[in-house]
Amino acid sequence: MTDKNPSIKPWGGRFTEATDQFVERFTASVSFDQRLYHHDINGSLAHAAMLEKVGVLSAEELAQIQQGLEEIRGEIERGEFEWSVSLEDVHMNIEAKLTEKIGITGKKLHTGRSRNDQVATDIRLYLRDEIGSITKELSRLQQGLVDLAKREADTIMPGFTHLQTAQPVSFGHHMLAWNEMLERDFGRLQDCLQRLNQCPLGAAALAGTTYPIDRHYSASLLGFDRPTENSLDSVSDRDFAIEFSAAGALLMTHLSRFSEELVLWTSAQFNFINLPDRFCTGSSIMPQKKNPDVPELIRGKVGRVNGHLFSLLTLMKSQPLAYNKDNQEDKEPLFDVIDTLKDCLKAYADMMPAITVNVEVTREAAMRGFSTATDLADYLVRKGLPFRDAHEVVGKSVGFGVAEGRDLSEMTLEELRGFSDIIEADVFEVLTLEGSVNARNHIGGTAPVQVRAAAERAQVRLSNR
Amino acid sequence: MTDKNPSIKPWGGRFTEATDQFVERFTASVSFDQRLYHHDINGSLAHAAMLEKVGVLSAEELAQIQQGLEEIRGEIERGEFEWSVSLEDVHMNIEAKLTEKIGITGKKLHTGRSRNDQVATDIRLYLRDEIGSITKELSRLQQGLVDLAKREADTIMPGFTHLQTAQPVSFGHHMLAWNEMLERDFGRLQDCLQRLNQCPLGAAALAGTTYPIDRHYSASLLGFDRPTENSLDSVSDRDFAIEFSAAGALLMTHLSRFSEELVLWTSAQFNFINLPDRFCTGSSIMPQKKNPDVPELIRGKVGRVNGHLFSLLTLMKSQPLAYNKDNQEDKEPLFDVIDTLKDCLKAYADMMPAITVNVEVTREAAMRGFSTATDLADYLVRKGLPFRDAHEVVGKSVGFGVAEGRDLSEMTLEELRGFSDIIEADVFEVLTLEGSVNARNHIGGTAPVQVRAAAERAQVRLSNR
Amino acid sequence: MTDKNPSIKPWGGRFTEATDQFVERFTASVSFDQRLYHHDINGSLAHAAMLEKVGVLSAEELAQIQQGLEEIRGEIERGEFEWSVSLEDVHMNIEAKLTEKIGITGKKLHTGRSRNDQVATDIRLYLRDEIGSITKELSRLQQGLVDLAKREADTIMPGFTHLQTAQPVSFGHHMLAWNEMLERDFGRLQDCLQRLNQCPLGAAALAGTTYPIDRHYSASLLGFDRPTENSLDSVSDRDFAIEFSAAGALLMTHLSRFSEELVLWTSAQFNFINLPDRFCTGSSIMPQKKNPDVPELIRGKVGRVNGHLFSLLTLMKSQPLAYNKDNQEDKEPLFDVIDTLKDCLKAYADMMPAITVNVEVTREAAMRGFSTATDLADYLVRKGLPFRDAHEVVGKSVGFGVAEGRDLSEMTLEELRGFSDIIEADVFEVLTLEGSVNARNHIGGTAPVQVRAAAERAQVRLSNR
Amino acid sequence: MTDKNPSIKPWGGRFTEATDQFVERFTASVSFDQRLYHHDINGSLAHAAMLEKVGVLSAEELAQIQQGLEEIRGEIERGEFEWSVSLEDVHMNIEAKLTEKIGITGKKLHTGRSRNDQVATDIRLYLRDEIGSITKELSRLQQGLVDLAKREADTIMPGFTHLQTAQPVSFGHHMLAWNEMLERDFGRLQDCLQRLNQCPLGAAALAGTTYPIDRHYSASLLGFDRPTENSLDSVSDRDFAIEFSAAGALLMTHLSRFSEELVLWTSAQFNFINLPDRFCTGSSIMPQKKNPDVPELIRGKVGRVNGHLFSLLTLMKSQPLAYNKDNQEDKEPLFDVIDTLKDCLKAYADMMPAITVNVEVTREAAMRGFSTATDLADYLVRKGLPFRDAHEVVGKSVGFGVAEGRDLSEMTLEELRGFSDIIEADVFEVLTLEGSVNARNHIGGTAPVQVRAAAERAQVRLSNR
Repeated sequence: MTDKNPSIKPWGGRFTEATDQFVERFTASVSFDQRLYHHDINGSLAHAAMLEKVGVLSAEELAQIQQGLEEIRGEIERGEFEWSVSLEDVHMNIEAKLTEKIGITGKKLHTGRSRNDQVATDIRLYLRDEIGSITKELSRLQQGLVDLAKREADTIMPGFTHLQTAQPVSFGHHMLAWNEMLERDFGRLQDCLQRLNQCPLGAAALAGTTYPIDRHYSASLLGFDRPTENSLDSVSDRDFAIEFSAAGALLMTHLSRFSEELVLWTSAQFNFINLPDRFCTGSSIMPQKKNPDVPELIRGKVGRVNGHLFSLLTLMKSQPLAYNKDNQEDKEPLFDVIDTLKDCLKAYADMMPAITVNVEVTREAAMRGFSTATDLADYLVRKGLPFRDAHEVVGKSVGFGVAEGRDLSEMTLEELRGFSDIIEADVFEVLTLEGSVNARNHIGGTAPVQVRAAAERAQVRLSNR
Repeated sequence: MTDKNPSIKPWGGRFTEATDQFVERFTASVSFDQRLYHHDINGSLAHAAMLEKVGVLSAEELAQIQQGLEEIRGEIERGEFEWSVSLEDVHMNIEAKLTEKIGITGKKLHTGRSRNDQVATDIRLYLRDEIGSITKELSRLQQGLVDLAKREADTIMPGFTHLQTAQPVSFGHHMLAWNEMLERDFGRLQDCLQRLNQCPLGAAALAGTTYPIDRHYSASLLGFDRPTENSLDSVSDRDFAIEFSAAGALLMTHLSRFSEELVLWTSAQFNFINLPDRFCTGSSIMPQKKNPDVPELIRGKVGRVNGHLFSLLTLMKSQPLAYNKDNQEDKEPLFDVIDTLKDCLKAYADMMPAITVNVEVTREAAMRGFSTATDLADYLVRKGLPFRDAHEVVGKSVGFGVAEGRDLSEMTLEELRGFSDIIEADVFEVLTLEGSVNARNHIGGTAPVQVRAAAERAQVRLSNR
Repeated sequence: MTDKNPSIKPWGGRFTEATDQFVERFTASVSFDQRLYHHDINGSLAHAAMLEKVGVLSAEELAQIQQGLEEIRGEIERGEFEWSVSLEDVHMNIEAKLTEKIGITGKKLHTGRSRNDQVATDIRLYLRDEIGSITKELSRLQQGLVDLAKREADTIMPGFTHLQTAQPVSFGHHMLAWNEMLERDFGRLQDCLQRLNQCPLGAAALAGTTYPIDRHYSASLLGFDRPTENSLDSVSDRDFAIEFSAAGALLMTHLSRFSEELVLWTSAQFNFINLPDRFCTGSSIMPQKKNPDVPELIRGKVGRVNGHLFSLLTLMKSQPLAYNKDNQEDKEPLFDVIDTLKDCLKAYADMMPAITVNVEVTREAAMRGFSTATDLADYLVRKGLPFRDAHEVVGKSVGFGVAEGRDLSEMTLEELRGFSDIIEADVFEVLTLEGSVNARNHIGGTAPVQVRAAAERAQVRLSNR
Repeated sequence: MTDKNPSIKPWGGRFTEATDQFVERFTASVSFDQRLYHHDINGSLAHAAMLEKVGVLSAEELAQIQQGLEEIRGEIERGEFEWSVSLEDVHMNIEAKLTEKIGITGKKLHTGRSRNDQVATDIRLYLRDEIGSITKELSRLQQGLVDLAKREADTIMPGFTHLQTAQPVSFGHHMLAWNEMLERDFGRLQDCLQRLNQCPLGAAALAGTTYPIDRHYSASLLGFDRPTENSLDSVSDRDFAIEFSAAGALLMTHLSRFSEELVLWTSAQFNFINLPDRFCTGSSIMPQKKNPDVPELIRGKVGRVNGHLFSLLTLMKSQPLAYNKDNQEDKEPLFDVIDTLKDCLKAYADMMPAITVNVEVTREAAMRGFSTATDLADYLVRKGLPFRDAHEVVGKSVGFGVAEGRDLSEMTLEELRGFSDIIEADVFEVLTLEGSVNARNHIGGTAPVQVRAAAERAQVRLSNR
């Protein structure tokens, strides 16, 4: 980044000394906001077209501006554009270049707008596109989950509560639990998208402008649903960044939960799944290591997004209207949330189809830990015992099993009848894993037939996006 | 709170020693979750009705349960119910009492459910009602803002950016900026409400149940849109608490911004408004003090809600499926967010109609600080100067005014023409406050006619809720 | 809590209408700050003694005040004191009661101070005592860790990185890792204690007082190191609350890490340790469950303390000097951090001596997962291979072992020599668990002899507190 | 950054497929950890020297390593070093280059250490230096405050509580309040520095190493106080990053408070001070604007640091021992906290000497708002009234003044005596600003003589650093 124009400021008129050089660098944003160039140019094109429509610019001036801006876009994309810190931000860099290219007409582009509404527009345009990219990766990940759920609907694993073996569940059912979380994340991102899709252009510095602008026209050119309602709010509102980051923090929280499980499941102690080598790395000192780096790193990255959310909330606390310089601090956190979500979702979407399940291991694990104890209790209830009493009977049976080192299905009928004489030979059917999962046969339950039906419903929702 | 039943635990069967007394207190939640009693009873009534419908309970058993639960509700509401810490939580307290009242049938109520889906249902029911109360207060506050905006549409105050005088704005316009923020808050709360309105009942402990339950029936009895899709997710999902708290944190951020302005505006230096004595307090040592305690305290309370949001995000980070005891920590933050929002919105809604504006002070302030400098620049543009050049001319005029201690409207025509000879006598019209605000006459602009139109639109939206 | 004095405010002189009833409740703090009563009375006693010393109070007046305050302390401790919301806070409740008891002299107690310096003093006194209680429990927990470390110095378990088996370690060594974390926590709490131990009394409302006070005298009576340096800072400083909460958040982060491990280790898959029944609870539906509720709940409680830390940081952001009402929001988070730390440390300190290790299970686990692969690499280095090359050789051996389902120690010499012909028969000594741990024999290493020495050093530090 | 070595991994032995290209980029840290190069090389030099001392390396090998590493340091500093993403991080990039330069000996450098202890050492070394830079700027800022305090000890401004005029204070006194906050920040940074200054080198991967290392020697070469106590803790401990960030968050909170005041004080309504043009910027649309960008931006940056703190706390929550990949996420937040603190402190230290006070304005402001009301109350107490009664009398006088639009000093003796007949002519002396500030003449009070004494004490503390 070079500084060919150290003294040209768009606001220098009333100032008697140059900006301190450190202050210039300290307050400049061009090092990070240049990524808005594409949407800044699009916003300027719409503003210029509107100015022409209402007679502020001539058709010829508009054409000059359009050509100049497209040239600049090309230069930026080819890496030929020289960004200047003394021009502060992406907006002034582009406008200065435009004036350099087309002369006095370039200076007219800023008629009827301010950097305050310009940047508010740019960020919304940018975020709108990025939400599109994020939800695309999210959908790809969800598709991977639904496919895996179908494939492993009949695979049995232990379901856990408190990380203690609870009841046998279908592996596919577990995958669909993850999918439900992501389904809500999708909804939140869509709600955010809809709420932000209003055009601040025309709010100018804070109060609107004296030019005869047509805000509906520029809003529609940019694909916004409508202009924003209030100029003061328009230039100071960063709700969309906070709402988006909050949705992102929740999404990352979900990924941290999946990641925790993938890390557990690839440990020697669990060994439920395999991750291909290409998603893992090794150790510089321990030659045997194959570490689940990708889920670990993603688990760590939830901190990043939580942090950015809190950064933005702190930023906006107690800010009086309208725009304050503090708001320049909105961009880096927002950009990093976007980048983090895209990367983490891509990593997960790539990884999901490559997961293989060690079905014998998960089955064996499900058979340990008295996972069918609830089924025994339910059996007793069907034989007439109140649930709370059945619970007591089974609790004592389990105590016996713990002491003897045997599971319920490994006890004799006599032993079981020692705890309740209403137990009969048919009890052993309910103590099998298949008996247990198939019996939970209702919407939301873990019976494989329900898992397949749920996967179908999820597929339909995905297809309808 | 007394402990008449120290040894009766609903899960004691397999245990060989009693719970440590400190642990019992430490892990119990009844001291704070008893506020769920009403929704817990409603949830149980729906569950019982469903059990009767599918034949698990007889009509008579259902009637007993219904009568018993209603008696308990009455006892609780009359303060006659004895809560026991050793019964852990609201659910077990109520169920134990039910069994005490109606005997063995009481024990049957828990058939086909678990505390895991029970508590998930209770919180959703509770939060659903509380969001209703919150949005009611929110609407009342918005109504106050719209009324004030109409009343003060013609009142002129300085608009600020960077807390420096920027341009004159309508006081009503400023009020509507606040209203826009609250409008988005309302939308977020509604989105949250819609997303949470699914019924977890039937998910049981984590995998569903072996009883022939009808989840659609119990869901519809409780006013839910549908049953949840996945049992593992149902018992471990706390998204709604996080989404709600995030919406709350943003709402409180907005209130912190209003509060900052109210505190500024009641200072001796600003003196823009008066708050009635009944919303203020004094000092124990300085007899002259009249402090804007209510806005200050609300400004401080944004910390509380931000904190709870981060508490919940931390809580859920890395939790494997399904329910873990950690989740008991979801309630206190959630409850306090609810209470804080209700109180702060009530305080604001009460206070808003009582605010009076010192219209001479705000007008006088608007006349200082070169607030019409942009109007002069726009005037020059209309006379043919490119905006950037006009900006330069006005900047120099302001520099002169700062040195001379005079505003633009206090300079002579000759002085002004010294900066640009295209300035003519008609310039003084654009330098008046009324000229300035009336000129920003487009949707979202500060012209009083626009403010009134915007207030009308806001009124329509409020009326359609 | 009753309100016998609705209209008596200590600042009512200039007010023309009574405080709004809701506002009175909303802005009152007595419901939560009454826990400061003991330190408030102590602070008042010191202030009164100082006033007597400098001649503002007579000896007789002082005696009256002393007797009155001690009576009040007794009434509070016997539960006989009637707190009034309309008297706002603990300070005014006590002072009003004092005046009721001893008449006009009671009113003189507030001479030369304000609630601003009074509350700042009370919180510091209170926090100082509570840090004492917290570090006492912390020391007890550390003692438990050191004892366990000594007991299990020779017990071998797998050390993990990335939750993958890494190298064998001593169980005692693992316990001492926890102890190191707590040692730093202790240091942070001590630093906080030292920094807060300055007396704000005398700062009055914000600027000091016109009475001839002796700040060193009251500071020394209260056990403070010295008076604070600046009155404006004294009444608005809440650094100590933030510093303490940050130390608390880190302490809870450590407990969350232990808790994660305890939960893992009590799972069926790990089964490394047993927690006695008295620290666990069961399930209302699954009769076999024994859940590690205490560590789970503590893991969840880190969210609580993190949340309070951010609540306080948000609270103080951008507050101008000096005292603002916002600061009333400092107490509830601070109190809850204190309570949470005390409870969690007590639970851990109680639990630690009761943990039993399944030494066969941990040993067996250490033998799986190629945990001695690094030892083989080091062996090769001692035979002359550069480390990086040795790493490569062992990596290939492990690949072979994974494919064959055998650990390194289960391969034949010929098989091992197939990867490097410098391997000889003595290799099998370094592949034993004892060989591996004993070889890491330097300060900080896992050799049992080092573990015992480290435990001794830790014991000395604890004894010197 | 180029990738000439896509397939060379230091841990590739047991892997059967290459790392996925996206994963390689996603999991690499070299883009941000390359800033550790200097300390990484220093750490390696100390490790190599220790290896030579204990006989693992020959003197010649050590010399080769030393020369190679210094060459690499030169290449990096001259911008000639080609960083490779496929070599993951700064450590592997440097080691690979070393081996390229000096062959097989380069591979021996990693003997007896792991990346886990290497990175833990590097970050501590790096942070230790950066804390030095930060405290240097902090001291410079404090010096500026103390100088300003001396200069403006006699300047009177209104002291505020609740942003309402409270009592007159010395401007210098106000500056010293800020200095007290920074003094505590300095202490916290020093405590953090002391706690982190222990050397993890030798902890190796997690359990120590089998080589005969001398940890005290390498620790002393690097200026550490001693080696760390426990290897498992050493490689997983990130307390120092959290403690430092917490100290940073509090420091930034203080800067946000100063910034809030500077923004207020430069507003047209306050107009207490002037900031030179070089610390301000203008508006692209409003030619009159001179915005206090530097304080505003710094006020916003507190969010950044708060966010990073929460990021790190989230990161560490629930991490089992020992190193997990999550920890790679510790660096970016830590680095950004460092950069932010240095920049903000520099900006403030530069700005402080340039602030000029509008002494007539602050004096005039102090005379409004009944700022001497407390003095009148104290006067009445000295005449024998209990304080609470005096407060009531003055409150009523103020109420009269508000209604009449006159300050206390503008009332006649008769009017004043109407509220209490013990008031006499000498009352007017206590109602002057000088009378008021001079009367608060005790340590910590606002009397100019005390302010000067306090500034002297502050100067002594600064000089003794």
